[in-house]
Amino acid sequence: MPSDYDIVIVGAGILGLSCAYYLKKGNPGKTILVVDRFGDVAQGNSARSNAMFRNTFTSKDNLILSDTSIDFYLDTQKSGVDLGLKKSGYLWVMSEKQFSLNQRYIQKMLDNKIELRTYDNQDLRRMLPSLKREFGESEEAQLMKIPDVGGAAFGVKCGRLDPEKLSRFYSDNFLRLGGKVAFNTNVKSLIAGVDEPLGIEGEPFVWQEGKVTGILAEGEIKGEIKAKTVVIAAGVWNNELLDPIGIDGHVKAKKRQLFTVSAKRSPALQTLLRNGNFNELGVLPFVILPKSGCYVKAVEENSEFWLGCEDEFNRPYYSTPEETLDSCKAEPSYYEQSLYPILRSYFSEFENAKPAQMWAGYYSMNTLDSMPFVFEENGMIIAGGGSGSGIMKGDAMGRIVDAVYREGEHAEAMLYSGKSYAADRMSFKYRSVEREEWVI
Amino acid sequence: MPSDYDIVIVGAGILGLSCAYYLKKGNPGKTILVVDRFGDVAQGNSARSNAMFRNTFTSKDNLILSDTSIDFYLDTQKSGVDLGLKKSGYLWVMSEKQFSLNQRYIQKMLDNKIELRTYDNQDLRRMLPSLKREFGESEEAQLMKIPDVGGAAFGVKCGRLDPEKLSRFYSDNFLRLGGKVAFNTNVKSLIAGVDEPLGIEGEPFVWQEGKVTGILAEGEIKGEIKAKTVVIAAGVWNNELLDPIGIDGHVKAKKRQLFTVSAKRSPALQTLLRNGNFNELGVLPFVILPKSGCYVKAVEENSEFWLGCEDEFNRPYYSTPEETLDSCKAEPSYYEQSLYPILRSYFSEFENAKPAQMWAGYYSMNTLDSMPFVFEENGMIIAGGGSGSGIMKGDAMGRIVDAVYREGEHAEAMLYSGKSYAADRMSFKYRSVEREEWVI
Repeated sequence: MPSDYDIVIVGAGILGLSCAYYLKKGNPGKTILVVDRFGDVAQGNSARSNAMFRNTFTSKDNLILSDTSIDFYLDTQKSGVDLGLKKSGYLWVMSEKQFSLNQRYIQKMLDNKIELRTYDNQDLRRMLPSLKREFGESEEAQLMKIPDVGGAAFGVKCGRLDPEKLSRFYSDNFLRLGGKVAFNTNVKSLIAGVDEPLGIEGEPFVWQEGKVTGILAEGEIKGEIKAKTVVIAAGVWNNELLDPIGIDGHVKAKKRQLFTVSAKRSPALQTLLRNGNFNELGVLPFVILPKSGCYVKAVEENSEFWLGCEDEFNRPYYSTPEETLDSCKAEPSYYEQSLYPILRSYFSEFENAKPAQMWAGYYSMNTLDSMPFVFEENGMIIAGGGSGSGIMKGDAMGRIVDAVYREGEHAEAMLYSGKSYAADRMSFKYRSVEREEWVI
Repeated sequence: MPSDYDIVIVGAGILGLSCAYYLKKGNPGKTILVVDRFGDVAQGNSARSNAMFRNTFTSKDNLILSDTSIDFYLDTQKSGVDLGLKKSGYLWVMSEKQFSLNQRYIQKMLDNKIELRTYDNQDLRRMLPSLKREFGESEEAQLMKIPDVGGAAFGVKCGRLDPEKLSRFYSDNFLRLGGKVAFNTNVKSLIAGVDEPLGIEGEPFVWQEGKVTGILAEGEIKGEIKAKTVVIAAGVWNNELLDPIGIDGHVKAKKRQLFTVSAKRSPALQTLLRNGNFNELGVLPFVILPKSGCYVKAVEENSEFWLGCEDEFNRPYYSTPEETLDSCKAEPSYYEQSLYPILRSYFSEFENAKPAQMWAGYYSMNTLDSMPFVFEENGMIIAGGGSGSGIMKGDAMGRIVDAVYREGEHAEAMLYSGKSYAADRMSFKYRSVEREEWVI
């Protein structure tokens, strides 16, 4: 392998590989290397995620990033590439208060031509009969402040995909164009230097224009690898690379836990899983309950549900993850004490359900506005901040990074469907992303 | 000492003590405790700072925060309290390019009635005769890209103060009003709880409304101290407290180094120090050179200069400081290789000057926009992000924290001079601070 590239990309998750593909496609004459500490594509947090997608956002930035990416994923699968994509929909079940307060956001999304349907309690009784909608004088519901159901919203261009298959798609096409990937290769550090070094020990000095000139690798590839541009797409490991050279990677790592429950031996859970009232697939959509963001994902091919919820307080943030992915484990008590009591309040089918599998990974949180970013700094392009909705924006992000590479932070990126997007909206220096209001 | 307070403030630097004073003054019936890990006021980074002040900002937020604070400091000293305040001015020496590009910002500041004078090279030759303004064909200047001087701007309501004296002033007045301070008391952790606990192990659960209910202390005070509100004013230690409960403290710690050079045995340095052309004190103003933010501070009572510069790249960021303040040391090589070559290029008086003393501390950087913040979150008010200009805004910050305590994030704070300020401008949720353009 050569030790000198035009571009080195750190991270072979969906983001890094989407960047790799569009950079190579847009700049075929440039030599590009992707490095990743793991042994294959998407072995970090891409593979540990829920991997859902939706275009239901009030923020016009979130909308264009997700909508064009989803269109690309849908058309790619239509063209014969299996991305494990199922357009099964999202169903937000809301309390009366949520349903009432959110009407304005629903209207805003409808105005933006997002396919969104609303259901009242009558509709829900018919379409999702086992959902408990009223809790009366139940002591437990009062203790837990479990709200009655007021209605629901259903997003159509929403569903799930397979993050490994999507990553493989980008990787295959990147390799086909002549790109290189080095697995099992950890980036020990970024190399701080100058374009024209004087050869004095201690460079760069304060009076020099310092920049990142490459990476120091260990693993299958070792030593210094020089690059004219380094793309940082390392998710929760951004800060680990950037803190030592005094650049904020703008992410915090937050543990995300998923639990599976099998429907195989429960006719009631089978019935719930095979609900045919919402989509053509005849499968329960992704259901978000009105309490603590508790959610239910049907994975019909395994006859199982994936379950999780949102902890907004008292779940540690890490500047860089303190546990490795292998040591970062899901907590049975989190299922038992936090998730399960909410779940079985709304769906009695889950009474006594025990998790068959559980795992944990990390969200890559941009704590400023929970929206992604792309910015240039000292010879690098830094991308990330998915904050739980990164995969569904991955295609747009790769195209934006390519545009920034060619034209700088003020580039107009051309997204799928021919829509253009001003890249500097998601920089930090010129940040002007519209904040998301649909957060339930 | 009681173990139950209305308000506990973490941090007895200038920010924490200004908060303490205004909170106690505004809410005399409330019990307030300040805790700090050190043995006296301002023993963290307040005391290790340059402790300069200026009102020369283009951002209207920076202007009102600094201008009202400086007015308060000036009037306080006028009333007979020694704050070690010297209004000796700031002199920005600029390259031709800087001088030309910055005219619009100078004009903006003049429009905002900021006392600012400009000097051309003719003025500078007369007023600061030893400053080298032209480097001709000098090989070293070309190598280091040391620019010729194009002019200067002089800020009048600018100077230095004594951070320990200012902290003591706030502390004394806080104690006089009945506030309590516990030194040598480290906050081991914030306590995550709920207002009405159920008494089940593992609280707060996801379905409860969690909040911070106090601190766990070790040192002179030990154990749980309950508080209805906890104010976090811990500077670079914000993240250490907040990361474990999943709230971003929004600061990065960055090492700041200062070096002193004595003028006692050098008539040339004495002449420079006692320059009488800029202010009534007959002392050289704070001089910022046109290269790498290299600066010269005259400390006339010790007949010495304090010297430093800005390293914007390759100086590590820490989420929380990796070194203690005692182990965080200034680097002689930083003086020799980075600072000194710039300094003696402009002022030949410093030829062969060796530092008599040197020390290091940390900047508390808000990497988003280098401007301070105050925000509410889960039973806390979190303040910080001074980013190198915190002390000069300390008085306004304390008043804003008090306003947020009484009226929430959307409070209108009344600053010194009777000017009002919308506190939510410096929150994160509603952030709308005007970015600073005067950054040279």
